[in-house]
Amino acid sequence: MKIRVINPNTSASMTAKIGAAARAVAAPGTVIEAVNPSFGAASIEDHLDDVWAAAGVAEQVRTGQAEGADAFVIACFGDPGLHAAREIATGPVIGIAEAAFHAATLLATGFSVVTTLTRTCVIAEHLVLQYGFERRCRGIHGTDIAVLDLEDPASMAFERILAASKQALEQDRSEAIVLGCAGMADLCHALQDRLGVPVIDGVGAAVKFAESLVSLKLATSKIGDYAAPLAKSYAGLAGPFSPG
Amino acid sequence: MKIRVINPNTSASMTAKIGAAARAVAAPGTVIEAVNPSFGAASIEDHLDDVWAAAGVAEQVRTGQAEGADAFVIACFGDPGLHAAREIATGPVIGIAEAAFHAATLLATGFSVVTTLTRTCVIAEHLVLQYGFERRCRGIHGTDIAVLDLEDPASMAFERILAASKQALEQDRSEAIVLGCAGMADLCHALQDRLGVPVIDGVGAAVKFAESLVSLKLATSKIGDYAAPLAKSYAGLAGPFSPG
Amino acid sequence: MKIRVINPNTSASMTAKIGAAARAVAAPGTVIEAVNPSFGAASIEDHLDDVWAAAGVAEQVRTGQAEGADAFVIACFGDPGLHAAREIATGPVIGIAEAAFHAATLLATGFSVVTTLTRTCVIAEHLVLQYGFERRCRGIHGTDIAVLDLEDPASMAFERILAASKQALEQDRSEAIVLGCAGMADLCHALQDRLGVPVIDGVGAAVKFAESLVSLKLATSKIGDYAAPLAKSYAGLAGPFSPG
Amino acid sequence: MKIRVINPNTSASMTAKIGAAARAVAAPGTVIEAVNPSFGAASIEDHLDDVWAAAGVAEQVRTGQAEGADAFVIACFGDPGLHAAREIATGPVIGIAEAAFHAATLLATGFSVVTTLTRTCVIAEHLVLQYGFERRCRGIHGTDIAVLDLEDPASMAFERILAASKQALEQDRSEAIVLGCAGMADLCHALQDRLGVPVIDGVGAAVKFAESLVSLKLATSKIGDYAAPLAKSYAGLAGPFSPG
Amino acid sequence: MKIRVINPNTSASMTAKIGAAARAVAAPGTVIEAVNPSFGAASIEDHLDDVWAAAGVAEQVRTGQAEGADAFVIACFGDPGLHAAREIATGPVIGIAEAAFHAATLLATGFSVVTTLTRTCVIAEHLVLQYGFERRCRGIHGTDIAVLDLEDPASMAFERILAASKQALEQDRSEAIVLGCAGMADLCHALQDRLGVPVIDGVGAAVKFAESLVSLKLATSKIGDYAAPLAKSYAGLAGPFSPG
Amino acid sequence: MKIRVINPNTSASMTAKIGAAARAVAAPGTVIEAVNPSFGAASIEDHLDDVWAAAGVAEQVRTGQAEGADAFVIACFGDPGLHAAREIATGPVIGIAEAAFHAATLLATGFSVVTTLTRTCVIAEHLVLQYGFERRCRGIHGTDIAVLDLEDPASMAFERILAASKQALEQDRSEAIVLGCAGMADLCHALQDRLGVPVIDGVGAAVKFAESLVSLKLATSKIGDYAAPLAKSYAGLAGPFSPG
Repeated sequence: MKIRVINPNTSASMTAKIGAAARAVAAPGTVIEAVNPSFGAASIEDHLDDVWAAAGVAEQVRTGQAEGADAFVIACFGDPGLHAAREIATGPVIGIAEAAFHAATLLATGFSVVTTLTRTCVIAEHLVLQYGFERRCRGIHGTDIAVLDLEDPASMAFERILAASKQALEQDRSEAIVLGCAGMADLCHALQDRLGVPVIDGVGAAVKFAESLVSLKLATSKIGDYAAPLAKSYAGLAGPFSPG
Repeated sequence: MKIRVINPNTSASMTAKIGAAARAVAAPGTVIEAVNPSFGAASIEDHLDDVWAAAGVAEQVRTGQAEGADAFVIACFGDPGLHAAREIATGPVIGIAEAAFHAATLLATGFSVVTTLTRTCVIAEHLVLQYGFERRCRGIHGTDIAVLDLEDPASMAFERILAASKQALEQDRSEAIVLGCAGMADLCHALQDRLGVPVIDGVGAAVKFAESLVSLKLATSKIGDYAAPLAKSYAGLAGPFSPG
Repeated sequence: MKIRVINPNTSASMTAKIGAAARAVAAPGTVIEAVNPSFGAASIEDHLDDVWAAAGVAEQVRTGQAEGADAFVIACFGDPGLHAAREIATGPVIGIAEAAFHAATLLATGFSVVTTLTRTCVIAEHLVLQYGFERRCRGIHGTDIAVLDLEDPASMAFERILAASKQALEQDRSEAIVLGCAGMADLCHALQDRLGVPVIDGVGAAVKFAESLVSLKLATSKIGDYAAPLAKSYAGLAGPFSPG
Repeated sequence: MKIRVINPNTSASMTAKIGAAARAVAAPGTVIEAVNPSFGAASIEDHLDDVWAAAGVAEQVRTGQAEGADAFVIACFGDPGLHAAREIATGPVIGIAEAAFHAATLLATGFSVVTTLTRTCVIAEHLVLQYGFERRCRGIHGTDIAVLDLEDPASMAFERILAASKQALEQDRSEAIVLGCAGMADLCHALQDRLGVPVIDGVGAAVKFAESLVSLKLATSKIGDYAAPLAKSYAGLAGPFSPG
Repeated sequence: MKIRVINPNTSASMTAKIGAAARAVAAPGTVIEAVNPSFGAASIEDHLDDVWAAAGVAEQVRTGQAEGADAFVIACFGDPGLHAAREIATGPVIGIAEAAFHAATLLATGFSVVTTLTRTCVIAEHLVLQYGFERRCRGIHGTDIAVLDLEDPASMAFERILAASKQALEQDRSEAIVLGCAGMADLCHALQDRLGVPVIDGVGAAVKFAESLVSLKLATSKIGDYAAPLAKSYAGLAGPFSPG
Repeated sequence: MKIRVINPNTSASMTAKIGAAARAVAAPGTVIEAVNPSFGAASIEDHLDDVWAAAGVAEQVRTGQAEGADAFVIACFGDPGLHAAREIATGPVIGIAEAAFHAATLLATGFSVVTTLTRTCVIAEHLVLQYGFERRCRGIHGTDIAVLDLEDPASMAFERILAASKQALEQDRSEAIVLGCAGMADLCHALQDRLGVPVIDGVGAAVKFAESLVSLKLATSKIGDYAAPLAKSYAGLAGPFSPG
């Protein structure tokens, strides 16, 4: 089984980290293909970054689909381009925010999200509502650590996320933590050890759920809302990405 | 990894069928232990059956926990005893209604449930609401096939479920079907072939999600709502099931 | 009119207290029959206790129905077994959480619940949602007084509940207090005197609402979701409770 | 105990009918005082009628309060002036729509409303939402019988309401009927006999719930949202109704 | 185009202030007619005031309609009589709470309301829910400044509203402020300058939205819920306001 | 005042039609600048088209902002790129779906949407939920007319939209129609004449609301969720659109 894990930003180091996180949990027969778009932002931290990330995801699902990927993971917590990706793909497509929310509700009655910049919280809120988790998600908390600073030891990212998580559990009366950025995947187990509650990294969760669906012979529904994109030619720089 | 799959009713033939469905999708290293309670109803078709099924699930989680089960699946569409099971267990516990709803939303924007007796629809409605899928579940439809008649060819179960599914997809503008009974697990692939949309059996989905969580080192949160049951002695016939 | 008031736990002293609270408000012609199951927990403080309490309630509704009870009250704040009880009974069945929530909304635009163990709050939350009071219930607060300690003067229960209620009114901007445990029934009037806002004990409210419905010739609907349980034989220790 | 039952319209014959319905269910010691405002519409059938009905209710609660009424019932299905009435009154105030919705949810998982003019349905919808019953109320159906025609045999009101109720139960998968007009109170039992499901008249329900609350020593909360109206002088024709 | 702006209270000074605020934003061709009812309260600060304000609004819409007003604005934050006004009018009718909420959601993902008396917050909450802004409105805050004190410099109204707004933005994580009283219209720009976020006065917003709808040839729908009031004679003091 | 009206697809004829519709309603002093992106789809009919449209909108807001546009309208019913546009712009940004929904709720208690392809209905549903109109929008109906066929007389677009609108009003018990495509703007008045209820074209509504906000000195909140995009360089083909 081949799962294409798409880092929607263009930072190769983050693509590598995400690929490693995916491979660490993948089943023996699963091939993880970690990629990122050829264009867009180095980190997704606002709505504008998100718009281009969605286009980048579409690029990578298109080529992945042509090359026979069995499933796709969108490894950015805003799940950019998720619906378009499901139109293009025939196999399952899973966003990491979505996967993390689902996993959290299987383990706890309420969870809190700890993420990077406070300004991205509204993106998570929109997803929580669209997916139906507004009564299970008890709080979304920014740490104001920039995405790329997660890799910089001087950012004290681990300590700050740990502190924010403790506060969230207490304040929200939550019982699990969802990490709000693919770039936090490597901190997951250490945080879980320190906090004593489930700490969920969406990259891992999405990979396992994608594997699960493929092995159950379940794929994206191709009638109605996720039918294949209509064949048409796109103009200008979007031309190479035309569905027709 | 050992997953105890609990059929909450006392029909051995159904336990066997559920066990087979679970084994058919389990990963190589997974041991499926299909069990049923020592007491209760031969099929779960109303609220009273459900009450005793919940107690039966608690019985089987208790012994499974003592015997080292890594995860539990509750294989009845009402997810009886789910919250109590999560108190008793340390590993993940997944209900098949829950699992099927989650899987459906990963594949389609809207799904319909096709179940057995119409009178059980309200149980599914309560779950849909509690889990947060009230905007994704576009209809719950009874076929009025009794649970145990699913195994009787004279019931024409396949044909009736197929017809009800077609009607549900049309009427609800849905794009996936969730099967509303563990006893329909064996019909899943044939229905999917005929309908051309994802058809989700919760038994398979729950087993794969349980495997996923265990392999991610995620377990039920043991602080707050799902902390271990308080140690106390139960009176009367409940005595043997005392948590203390 | 005969109303069977079921204490779902097995503590005789609490059954007596609940019976007294019920009789204190019952109309002249009403006979209160205070009973408890023959099995289960001495106090209902977690999901597992709740599962057995539901079975215990079913036991007592079954016999009460056979003996001609006109209505039933389930005197535990989690309303265990409510739906099953409504299947078995022909007269009205009212849970005390339900009754208290209804009464509160007739007196105030927002109310707060003050209950025993914090871990039971999630049970109340599930009920609040199922009944539709999620916009009227402005907070659910645990005091971490164990149910049976309510009868122990050393627990300072009155003072702690008073303090928690004051804080809840302030913090939640609420205007009424719902007592979250049948064992608090005897504190109701003293708390109301001290707080100057309505303080609602569900036992009293449920008894009066049950009387109301019976005198209005209203009974549980017996079509659809609350039709009589299907006739079947239960196996094992559930055998004596078979509906068929 | 004295309960003032306010018919918010000015039709004396309807006031008499409502008074009779109230007395038919009142407890031995309860005195029912059936009144109507000195001004307003002869029937409440649109938003404008409702506005004047609210003022009329305020008039009657004001005088009732001065004369020592222990509780109030607002006997029009739009519950006009409910919040203002609760400010003025110290005892409980109950609207008949409110009472009927509450009663219905104690007897069935879903109910349908059958009312008079279709254009009044939106008023009921607003109340259903404000009270929190939007998931329990499965349909609101107009019969387009004018309120005052309910008393005219030529209107075939009984037959039309019966037919609309049958259709509503079927179409909405409901299990109880709420009558959407105080003027239908006299049809309640005959409809219940014919339909075989609970048929709820809000007048009766409100009277019994008012009696219940008074006997429980529960009254409208006088802190916050329902505190007594601020003392001030009203200008013009509202002068006689000034709260100060 | 003639827009009748109705101050639902009887304070001439406030009517003048509202008229000035409306004229300040009106387009060149727009005639603003600022009026108030002939009866009712000098300020609307509780449910009882609101009831009479609704009747007063109906009075003024009735005469305005007869005199050819093209649209109506209800300039009190509780939007009293809005639905009745829409029955009477043929042109658009807009409440200032409604207008302010709509404007706020076009400018920010979340807003907070800062209003006068805390006891009026529940009126705003009811409107927020009815209009569908319950997820966008992140807080409603009383300052406990009486409406008529807004015009008294000794009340320090500006400073207190400024402080309450700052606290609301911080505490609610909001990005815009809605002023919860027509009497605050003159403070709007100064507050916006100090706060650095959009501060919305409903009077201005309602006038511009009314102009917009009229110029788009859009008017209140006259089928169904807002059809013209049924012709009937009202009794007593309501007689002059009869729709028939 | 200069309002940039962005047609997010690349069809010049549709840009011209949208510009004409905008100019037809604009106030004397308003300059309408009708533009479309340099890239993307000729019509927006699925999620993939929508992804590229969002990027195209970002392109046009960026240049419009540099050239001093006072406000922006996004003239595609999916409101593509709305949140990103609000980050980039300092003036107001309004989507036509959003504008039409707001206008409809000011005129009717319930509205129905009539749109082009059925597969786009889910996009409208997501918006309805995000904006909070899920209780006011009573139905979303596809006509399966392709966007570009709206301009082809042979498509019988007017007749089909008229028929679909009639059916929607009846079936949904709605009182206003929202046109679900910018390409229907020219049919709006003729449809309104035939249907006798408000028919709302979002292009006109958005232009007027944008004018309204600008004249009220209201602009997009620039703290929090809509703060200016973070300065960063985008890679690859997105490079020219970098916010930094």
